[in-house]
Amino acid sequence: MKAHRADGLSAFFEPASVAVFGSLNDSAFAIGNAFGVIKNMLSFRFKGKIYPINLSGGETMGIKAYTNVSEVGDAVDLAMLLIPPRAVPAVINQCASKGIRAVIVGTENFAEAGEEGAALQKEVVKIARRSGTRVLGPNTLGVLNPSNGLITTPYPLYYDSVMKGGISYCSQSGLLSFGACPLKDKGYPISKMCDFGNKCDVNEVDLLNYLAEDSDTRVISMHLEDIKDGHAFMEATRKAVVKKPVLIFKPGRSEAGAKAAASHTGSLAGDNQIYDSAFRQAGAIRVNNLGEFWEIPRVFSSQPLPKGNRFAVIVGSGGSGVIAIDTATDVGLIPATFTTSTVRKMARLSPRLANNPVDIGPVSVTASDPFSVFEEMIPIVLADGNVDCVTIGCMGTPESVDVFRRLKTHLSDISKPITIFLWGTDLQIMEESARQLEALGIPTYLDLETAVKSLGVSVAYSKIKLRAER
Amino acid sequence: MKAHRADGLSAFFEPASVAVFGSLNDSAFAIGNAFGVIKNMLSFRFKGKIYPINLSGGETMGIKAYTNVSEVGDAVDLAMLLIPPRAVPAVINQCASKGIRAVIVGTENFAEAGEEGAALQKEVVKIARRSGTRVLGPNTLGVLNPSNGLITTPYPLYYDSVMKGGISYCSQSGLLSFGACPLKDKGYPISKMCDFGNKCDVNEVDLLNYLAEDSDTRVISMHLEDIKDGHAFMEATRKAVVKKPVLIFKPGRSEAGAKAAASHTGSLAGDNQIYDSAFRQAGAIRVNNLGEFWEIPRVFSSQPLPKGNRFAVIVGSGGSGVIAIDTATDVGLIPATFTTSTVRKMARLSPRLANNPVDIGPVSVTASDPFSVFEEMIPIVLADGNVDCVTIGCMGTPESVDVFRRLKTHLSDISKPITIFLWGTDLQIMEESARQLEALGIPTYLDLETAVKSLGVSVAYSKIKLRAER
Repeated sequence: MKAHRADGLSAFFEPASVAVFGSLNDSAFAIGNAFGVIKNMLSFRFKGKIYPINLSGGETMGIKAYTNVSEVGDAVDLAMLLIPPRAVPAVINQCASKGIRAVIVGTENFAEAGEEGAALQKEVVKIARRSGTRVLGPNTLGVLNPSNGLITTPYPLYYDSVMKGGISYCSQSGLLSFGACPLKDKGYPISKMCDFGNKCDVNEVDLLNYLAEDSDTRVISMHLEDIKDGHAFMEATRKAVVKKPVLIFKPGRSEAGAKAAASHTGSLAGDNQIYDSAFRQAGAIRVNNLGEFWEIPRVFSSQPLPKGNRFAVIVGSGGSGVIAIDTATDVGLIPATFTTSTVRKMARLSPRLANNPVDIGPVSVTASDPFSVFEEMIPIVLADGNVDCVTIGCMGTPESVDVFRRLKTHLSDISKPITIFLWGTDLQIMEESARQLEALGIPTYLDLETAVKSLGVSVAYSKIKLRAER
Repeated sequence: MKAHRADGLSAFFEPASVAVFGSLNDSAFAIGNAFGVIKNMLSFRFKGKIYPINLSGGETMGIKAYTNVSEVGDAVDLAMLLIPPRAVPAVINQCASKGIRAVIVGTENFAEAGEEGAALQKEVVKIARRSGTRVLGPNTLGVLNPSNGLITTPYPLYYDSVMKGGISYCSQSGLLSFGACPLKDKGYPISKMCDFGNKCDVNEVDLLNYLAEDSDTRVISMHLEDIKDGHAFMEATRKAVVKKPVLIFKPGRSEAGAKAAASHTGSLAGDNQIYDSAFRQAGAIRVNNLGEFWEIPRVFSSQPLPKGNRFAVIVGSGGSGVIAIDTATDVGLIPATFTTSTVRKMARLSPRLANNPVDIGPVSVTASDPFSVFEEMIPIVLADGNVDCVTIGCMGTPESVDVFRRLKTHLSDISKPITIFLWGTDLQIMEESARQLEALGIPTYLDLETAVKSLGVSVAYSKIKLRAER
């Protein structure tokens, strides 16, 4: 099936050259244009060549503009179109003639806007199928690839880089994309991102196939409002989950939500329970909200999979231990029972330390250096043969970051997944500490329950992978 | 019942003078002491008098210290004790003799630490009961009252003020208190806060009774690991919910969690389902996690109660509208159907605007000033007779804050609850915008689902209040 080939997709994420069609006006009232895209690509230090295409020609930000893509002497891999809807079909034909195999149609007012737009979108699909040029969109911000600095959104961003890592996010809404999330400040370790838009040609199946094979992607987190071809989706998911976890955030659970989705995407959202069982059968893991869509994947970007579901938690207050154990039980983890050897080692530090949750609060307030208690305790808990995964709660400060910097080699050697939960009284210091820990390769959360739940999802995926490999 | 009087409690929150017992050592390795408390009270500009009490006398930060509280000439309303456990009983007796009716025992190592500590705690209770002096703790950070600058934690904070407002938070763990949360940065509008500690005397029933009568408190959000007296708790809750909502976060839902709670507080956590039905019967609303404990109360601090459950949402992307409607349905709201008059007014702005969710995205990208579309749309939606409550999603920037500053009078006149959800690409700008909107009296969330859920909880409380008043 032509529409589900993965091969055409690498040009969307790894182009050596990009043609950007649209206005080069840099006034504040025309920011959603080609100028905006090129500005973002320059600030992200895109490693390939950029060719602005505009009827007026000239140049922008020191880059020569062409009046027609056919004038560009070199090969062009990807085109980003921010031109009026009616001009789109002809320009895709020009792109195809130039040998461009990947086109993003950023422009709005296609199928989502009524009958006229829908007819135009059909024409786009026809051209795509006939020419073999793949089309992402319309009505999309396009793609992001931090490895080569590719970013195709025309809107101004307050950041000029994101952390490189193993998460690939795909979504069917600008809200869940690089245009509406503080990606850099949140420190998400990102491999690729894709905003599907109207999915007239390139869709979730193509992305699943492509990202399953992409060696930089360790986890796929996908927001979907509808699924174009259920059978192909199931097949692509089944193949992907052998290699990496697929997390799905699919709103429209309620009848009212499904109706809202239908009116907005122009496609039927379908029965929620059918989706639920399809996801389960295919091995996708459904996440429940925006926070989980963004945060849960962190654990897969850097951590090994757990060998079992025996969970330990190290905290600085008894109350947080109770919340952690509660959440763990909700997500299929069981509290680990420490070996006598572990209990003995802990008791040497303090007679009150032999339980799980390990509450180091009472010990650390009397210690000359409270962080040294953490540094001693973490390896003891991780080495326990009865422990499969660990959440560590600690204060979000530079001192905590230093502890984990010193433990880094030890943590990789032990090969058990951990997550960190940070607390504190200064949000900026907490956020900066979280980014630094994430950069060290440790999934770090400002929310205790999500730190624990991520490990539960990690256990769930281990089981799916085992089943899929059989 | 003496233990459940509310009267003794005002001295804990409105003292004209506070005696702080403990070390006045200001070295970095002795921060959890009287010096730390006084330092925090000075930086919060406590409006009353402070009397440091320390065997060595002298002075600290320009304040004269006394070797015994009996030497203080004036009356003392509240004492904060950070002295070794064994010294506590005698000092409480001294406080009682001095006429102090409220004592906070900050020191750890009482019932939570084993038999010896438990015996000592019993002695404390005996003295409290005999003398009529109320005791909060032991093992507590104490209280916070932003109205008079009272703060009793001995640990360093990264903030020196919090926003004044209508939320009173009570918790049984330092993690959910002013010592481990960036209260100022999060912009919670706070009336009072109390860390229960071991609850040897003052407990959740006292606080419910006190806060129900406190005119600055518009909502009570309470974290509980156990309940000392179920009958009294039910009675106090029933009385409180006639006046204001009571939100309860009670972990220990799982058997393992309950066990962890028991080992940490030394009290039995009890069966989860019994708690569930007791809360429901008494009219308390149970929240499910740390995020909800902190965030849901915002809506009650400033907003009127909704007259019904008909919900509208104004968003900048179709995808977020679907998520909002889905969440709304989950929490008992129903999507409002706009009147023909509203539909006509909207259609004048754009033919694509007549639906709920109101997706202004397509209109605002082509508008010369995208924020003016918001400013026109909000009053139209709020005025609709079929709409009871509204969530508004917008970019977290100074321009959005300006829109709501201009609409402020209009919003209060219309008397329907609204919540704001902010999105954006710069976290600090988003957080600053959220604080400014909260200061304007509009509950503001960085999470779409919580913004919607808060309105659902508001509807739930309306029903509880109606039932309770009958």
